[in-house]
Amino acid sequence: MTYRAPISDILLALNHGAGLQAAVQAGHYGDFDGDIAAAVLEEAGKFAGDVLAPLNRVGDEQGIKLADNKVTTAPGWPDAYRRWAAAGWNAVSGPEAFGGQGLPLAINAACTEIWSASNIAFGLCPLLTLSAIEALEAHGSDELKQIYLQKLVSGEWTGTMQLTESQAGSDVGALRTRAERAGDGSYRIKGTKIFITYGDHDMTDNIVHFVLARLPDAPAGTKGISLFLIPKLLVNADGSLGARNDIHPSGVEHKLGMHASPTCTMTMGDHGGAIGYLIGEENKGMQCMFTMMNQARLGVGLEGVGIADRAYQQALAFAQERKQGRAVGKKGDGLDPIIVHPDVKRMLLQMRSMTAAARSICYATAVAFDISARAKDPKVRADAAARGALLTPIAKAFSTDIGNEVTYLGVQIHGGMGFIEETGAAQHYRDARITSIYEGTNGIQSIDLVTRKLAANGGASVWALLDELNGIVKQVETSNDPGFGTTGAKLRDALGSLERASKWLLERVASAPNDALAGATPYLRLFGSTLGGCMLAGEALAAKSHGDAGDPQRYVTVARFFAENITVQAGSLEKTVTDSAEAVNGADAVWLG
Amino acid sequence: MTYRAPISDILLALNHGAGLQAAVQAGHYGDFDGDIAAAVLEEAGKFAGDVLAPLNRVGDEQGIKLADNKVTTAPGWPDAYRRWAAAGWNAVSGPEAFGGQGLPLAINAACTEIWSASNIAFGLCPLLTLSAIEALEAHGSDELKQIYLQKLVSGEWTGTMQLTESQAGSDVGALRTRAERAGDGSYRIKGTKIFITYGDHDMTDNIVHFVLARLPDAPAGTKGISLFLIPKLLVNADGSLGARNDIHPSGVEHKLGMHASPTCTMTMGDHGGAIGYLIGEENKGMQCMFTMMNQARLGVGLEGVGIADRAYQQALAFAQERKQGRAVGKKGDGLDPIIVHPDVKRMLLQMRSMTAAARSICYATAVAFDISARAKDPKVRADAAARGALLTPIAKAFSTDIGNEVTYLGVQIHGGMGFIEETGAAQHYRDARITSIYEGTNGIQSIDLVTRKLAANGGASVWALLDELNGIVKQVETSNDPGFGTTGAKLRDALGSLERASKWLLERVASAPNDALAGATPYLRLFGSTLGGCMLAGEALAAKSHGDAGDPQRYVTVARFFAENITVQAGSLEKTVTDSAEAVNGADAVWLG
Repeated sequence: MTYRAPISDILLALNHGAGLQAAVQAGHYGDFDGDIAAAVLEEAGKFAGDVLAPLNRVGDEQGIKLADNKVTTAPGWPDAYRRWAAAGWNAVSGPEAFGGQGLPLAINAACTEIWSASNIAFGLCPLLTLSAIEALEAHGSDELKQIYLQKLVSGEWTGTMQLTESQAGSDVGALRTRAERAGDGSYRIKGTKIFITYGDHDMTDNIVHFVLARLPDAPAGTKGISLFLIPKLLVNADGSLGARNDIHPSGVEHKLGMHASPTCTMTMGDHGGAIGYLIGEENKGMQCMFTMMNQARLGVGLEGVGIADRAYQQALAFAQERKQGRAVGKKGDGLDPIIVHPDVKRMLLQMRSMTAAARSICYATAVAFDISARAKDPKVRADAAARGALLTPIAKAFSTDIGNEVTYLGVQIHGGMGFIEETGAAQHYRDARITSIYEGTNGIQSIDLVTRKLAANGGASVWALLDELNGIVKQVETSNDPGFGTTGAKLRDALGSLERASKWLLERVASAPNDALAGATPYLRLFGSTLGGCMLAGEALAAKSHGDAGDPQRYVTVARFFAENITVQAGSLEKTVTDSAEAVNGADAVWLG
Repeated sequence: MTYRAPISDILLALNHGAGLQAAVQAGHYGDFDGDIAAAVLEEAGKFAGDVLAPLNRVGDEQGIKLADNKVTTAPGWPDAYRRWAAAGWNAVSGPEAFGGQGLPLAINAACTEIWSASNIAFGLCPLLTLSAIEALEAHGSDELKQIYLQKLVSGEWTGTMQLTESQAGSDVGALRTRAERAGDGSYRIKGTKIFITYGDHDMTDNIVHFVLARLPDAPAGTKGISLFLIPKLLVNADGSLGARNDIHPSGVEHKLGMHASPTCTMTMGDHGGAIGYLIGEENKGMQCMFTMMNQARLGVGLEGVGIADRAYQQALAFAQERKQGRAVGKKGDGLDPIIVHPDVKRMLLQMRSMTAAARSICYATAVAFDISARAKDPKVRADAAARGALLTPIAKAFSTDIGNEVTYLGVQIHGGMGFIEETGAAQHYRDARITSIYEGTNGIQSIDLVTRKLAANGGASVWALLDELNGIVKQVETSNDPGFGTTGAKLRDALGSLERASKWLLERVASAPNDALAGATPYLRLFGSTLGGCMLAGEALAAKSHGDAGDPQRYVTVARFFAENITVQAGSLEKTVTDSAEAVNGADAVWLG
């Protein structure tokens, strides 16, 4: 099954839905030339379609193998990775001082979608490297940066994030891996981590592990966690690779999906302890991890977008080819392709519009991160940082929920064939399943949204966003384009629901936290549905007025469908947030029988 | 992972939600003694928990094997099947004249849920046999009944339903398998069928295939299809098994789930043609198939209920054991089980309440079938038949949608462990996926609901049901139980939405069929959410007044949660039905780019 990057959709979402064009015009991107985006993305799409997409199936079928403490990836994967890194794709948004191209995160976000769509298990590896780069750049010593950063930026080496232990999953503070001061400034780390993505592989000569551990005299919980850099192979003073460090993959998981991505149990300390170097300060590791996690969460959201788009493209092609039944009222012989049936159209529109909404939200998150780092005006930077923080849990959870829902529909459109593995639709469905779990489950994203992001500054970030969305809705209402149908009314209602639900939650975050927590998941859905609906409408308006995205009417239809099918749920989601906390928190008797 | 049949929940749903007790009291069940239900279900639960549930995992891991034209099932499966049939479980609702126990379908529906929950791939086999029994009993000649019916009723032999061909899936009329008259009253059938569930296996000595084929002089399309009985082994005049018939499994599918259930390609005609016997009349095969399909569709709905309950039980046990984080406001040391977290409670309540709603709808469908066959008054029978016909697509589609949604949540509650196959949560998720596809995709169920069931008699069956539901809602409104929260208001709103959406669709079924078809899927969801919400509320009221189901307050909480989280979506679903047809049917430009 082929994949073709939807460049027009991506550019429309990037420039207009996510606001890249306006930000560039406002000078927030410095001397970045917005026109190069198209060229970069065209090339990314080409590499993804030609090299990565064809390896997706073999990765699923053959998976990875662990033998003699070494992981071997699927045939063709190491070569593809080296070509991918050599072409500079790992370095798109990397710091220029360390060999990166210094392009905006927003451009890399679109690339991440493309890698994920073509081959989600492949694209996962550089996501971890990006997080490692971010933590090292923000918190590492100059010496560590000199040794490791350039290799990570180029992708010559990859990174891992090692938080989880069997008793410490969502509850990172419960981890037990121990670090001891070695006396020479380095540390010796002993312990076992589980679920370590690309913990070992054969695609690069070295791997740089970022490991959370606890010093002997550390306080309990999250306040006693430190972050260590632990190379797979030690690095000599001249930069050459030295001895094998005491960190090994001791097991790999047998998973529902993502078969090509090794999920390792990592054992440290079989030979005296892995040599590690502190990142940031002792006992301040959680702070460093949070730095890593923001981009990682956005990256996982983009996986949701990518896998959804892949499933859509495959389902669309199937629906255009597979003949069953006939269109209503059709005379004469011959069957029609199933895309003539309204129920199939509905499923395809749902896939298409949900994917587009998630894409716009993720890109907008990236643009906010960019502005927070690049704008000259501190106020603009601070506002953008708050916006990025607010959008991150939505980008992660809403997009990965959508990734699961869209791949479900992808199977459904294939009918019985969808249940057969050779068809490939089921692989997307299986692969997507982890995205709503890792990097903080979607429940945890919802809690983050309500308790940290909404509650920050008394909701100021939310009100600012609602103001902007209100501007889009006004334009829709006055556009006089009948193609929008009831879009304006649906978005208007949704804005009201989102505002009321936000206020209701804000009033309870401190005073009745369990009531606020009970509403977190429907609130995030309400937020994403409203935000996505407004963004799609804004993109449709932009397509009409800019005329740079082909027939603009198709974007109007997509926006309308989303508003009338997804955003329309805002009213009921609001009621669920405000009415159902009592049932949720009073449920204990239910478990008894 | 163990499974325990939730007997109290099942009995409450059966007796009160589905109305079995009232129907028995009204005399519609003849001399059936309602009190035996509990005893039968306890025994079924015991067999399921002790024998079937332990074989679920090995079935998934080892699957089935095809070699030398023979399918071998997983270790332990043939023995379990023989024990199951010997204990009389296949014959629960079979006709007494042929060795069946003649118990109501409603009892067998509860048993079907139990088999599906304990081992869905196992439970699938007798579902096909039941359909075969139904077709043979309704349409077969006395001679065929004498030879085959008793063996099928006892389960000594199993049945298959063979409709699908590679070019004829949802569009059965496109099938090409050919049947020729042999001159002796029998037929010779040649062709290839795909996706034949339990098309071959080693659990019984013989298999009775029910195959759709086309005579040489048959009209095109569905009007030229005939149904044939084709035994795997021919049966001699004395009832002993004779020669191998010319029907063989020539391939098995590699599937996302249901690994233990063989999905065969069946080839007929390698040696001159399979010997087949006509069921019913020539060219009237579709009518016979529809007879088979009603029960089969209900059976698949019950698979959705069963797999959902299994996933719920497993997730609940995990949430009660797995410790991560602490309850809000908790002081002192130690972690809490994750069930203290409101977001986890929400997921569990969603699983529990959705499962209960689907269960009640399925059981009500079975009760309607029972009354339509057993009541003395022809008007009562006719009304019940219409009710059963109306509920069938909802029972199938809503329940299997729920099976997928609940197993998704089951994985989610397990966090990262849910993605690991050994945990078992992923198996339920994979196994559930086919249920919304086979026996008519859920889209086709929705179309059946709108174009046939709603439209029959100008909506009379729907109005009659709405009247009944209105009675329940009135009781909730006047119950003065604060535990119901806003349940009454949510159900009242939903009834209004369902009525308006029904009228809107009725007005368009003939005049603007594509508009009606575009709203079919959200309409079915609206119907199921409203109906399920009312039924759960009715059960909670019954639990309170009858006091035979333990603490009734837990049923109030479940009903309330469902109303405030699921039924509450009725208003937005109504708007989707009435507003979005234009976007759906005007989508063709969207596919272009």
